[in-house]
Amino acid sequence: MNHRITLAERPVGDIADSCFARDDVPIPVPGPGEVLAEVTWLSIDPTIRGWMAFDTYLPAIEIGAPIRSSGLATVIESNNDAYPVGATVTGMTNWQQYVVFERGFRVLPDDVPPEAALSVFGTTGLTAYFGLLDVGRPVAGETVLVSGAAGATGSVVGQIARIKGCRVVGIAGSVEKCSWLVDELGFDEAINYKTDNVRRSIRAACPDGVDVFFDNVGGDILEAAINNLALRGRVVLCGAISQYNDVAPTPGPRNLSVLIGRRGRMEGFIVLDYLRRAGEAISDLAGWVGDGELSYRTHVVDGLDNAPQALNTLFTGENTGKAMVRL
Amino acid sequence: MNHRITLAERPVGDIADSCFARDDVPIPVPGPGEVLAEVTWLSIDPTIRGWMAFDTYLPAIEIGAPIRSSGLATVIESNNDAYPVGATVTGMTNWQQYVVFERGFRVLPDDVPPEAALSVFGTTGLTAYFGLLDVGRPVAGETVLVSGAAGATGSVVGQIARIKGCRVVGIAGSVEKCSWLVDELGFDEAINYKTDNVRRSIRAACPDGVDVFFDNVGGDILEAAINNLALRGRVVLCGAISQYNDVAPTPGPRNLSVLIGRRGRMEGFIVLDYLRRAGEAISDLAGWVGDGELSYRTHVVDGLDNAPQALNTLFTGENTGKAMVRL
Repeated sequence: MNHRITLAERPVGDIADSCFARDDVPIPVPGPGEVLAEVTWLSIDPTIRGWMAFDTYLPAIEIGAPIRSSGLATVIESNNDAYPVGATVTGMTNWQQYVVFERGFRVLPDDVPPEAALSVFGTTGLTAYFGLLDVGRPVAGETVLVSGAAGATGSVVGQIARIKGCRVVGIAGSVEKCSWLVDELGFDEAINYKTDNVRRSIRAACPDGVDVFFDNVGGDILEAAINNLALRGRVVLCGAISQYNDVAPTPGPRNLSVLIGRRGRMEGFIVLDYLRRAGEAISDLAGWVGDGELSYRTHVVDGLDNAPQALNTLFTGENTGKAMVRL
Repeated sequence: MNHRITLAERPVGDIADSCFARDDVPIPVPGPGEVLAEVTWLSIDPTIRGWMAFDTYLPAIEIGAPIRSSGLATVIESNNDAYPVGATVTGMTNWQQYVVFERGFRVLPDDVPPEAALSVFGTTGLTAYFGLLDVGRPVAGETVLVSGAAGATGSVVGQIARIKGCRVVGIAGSVEKCSWLVDELGFDEAINYKTDNVRRSIRAACPDGVDVFFDNVGGDILEAAINNLALRGRVVLCGAISQYNDVAPTPGPRNLSVLIGRRGRMEGFIVLDYLRRAGEAISDLAGWVGDGELSYRTHVVDGLDNAPQALNTLFTGENTGKAMVRL
């Protein structure tokens, strides 16, 4: 049988256990051109909260369908030459033990560890790479500020910015996370938003202003960053995790008109638009990992049934590194 | 003597009479390389409110100094070959009868009426031209939404968008203004924000979404426009007149994360950055005015001492067209 975790009801506020149901259905049979694969790992990402709740850049998950999620799988039956039996593939596996697909998956080289495939070489790494370089367009010598800096995406953003010759300042939620950013990842400074005055700390850490703000968080931190934006500064809107669990829409930054006087640009993006350029990013990222220039860490939870709990760690900040589930 | 209106105190909320003082000082004597000119017209712009209150993209006006303002003047004494006696010049005349300058003014051709020089060929026209075309980058067939559409800048923005082959929707504050937009300026539709549900009206008038939103207003109208943004839509932040008189900062749009899913871009600009490209804009604008494709109207107030009252019409919406003072 195919064990699955499905959407029982849409989240309102925090993601409650009652949002999820578990069932066992017959293992699907691949048709002509189709492939059956056994799911081995799941990538746990904040965007899943949005997919559960409403239509976003993808339609909302239907009630009763397995939770949408990317992951890794091993091909066990194939009617498609592009996906040979035994290959490790990555794509939308969803929260289940077996997946059938015809396209939309990518075969991974054998030598990539699963933890790397789902973090630095997965959508997390691509999000950091294209969001920072294509949308933020930092120039060597500029100051890059990152929120959610100890998170899976933010930690890669900050390291790429350092590699590109920028001054890098991170915002994170604990002393331990801030130390990790500065001592191990080579950030120039880190701000603990739980204990520091964020606006003043940004000003102190970015005396020439913020040239690129890569925002994973939204809310008050976004407002504080806008306040410190340099002339022609750019705000890369990647996520707004501080607001995903809000029941009612929360007010936005009160200082958007700062963007006028400072000729600022604020721009959103979705990594799906960049998947066809994945090779370009992975080649750079693999080079930097190989050189020891780029580190990553993962937060591995065991067992499909623990996926909901792994998802919730993203909102409590309990995870340290890219959250993933090993089946 | 040189009669002046100076800054007596900084505005808090609405611009009170007590913000202004009047004095008479000796007519300044031009030194080497300098020019003395008699001020003939003043351009009355919302940005003056900001200059009076605090540092913006220019330092705040000093207490006791004449109110900063662009305008027209006639050269009456010149130690500078670039500015011959009798020439009409435009630049920062400030609110006074006589101005001395050495540079930063532009000589106007003799055949430009003052009303046109200060509106469609002045910073208003340049703001509309570069803000729409350089920042908004509309493409023929796209939908352009303009707030403050019956204002000096907005009315030119909408007409340029029409000339460029876009569907144009304006937001204004009276039945009369809306009729003017549609019947005389060729807007496709107009929304009266005082009587219509703005969010629903935008959706109805822009069924394929808003590709470019040119915002002069900020606040709730900005939020409503973001809600209707098309994929890869652009928000041009030109002004936020709804908020300039606010005593405390007002919350921003609650839906900024729409920019993520729709890959939206929001960007501010200041027309001063484009002054060196003024010729390019004025050449196009003059062609369109000559062809009868581009109309403008002006709101002329007589007498330097009435400049404060002219400024206040911008915030009450009483003006219909570019506000200016004839000395």
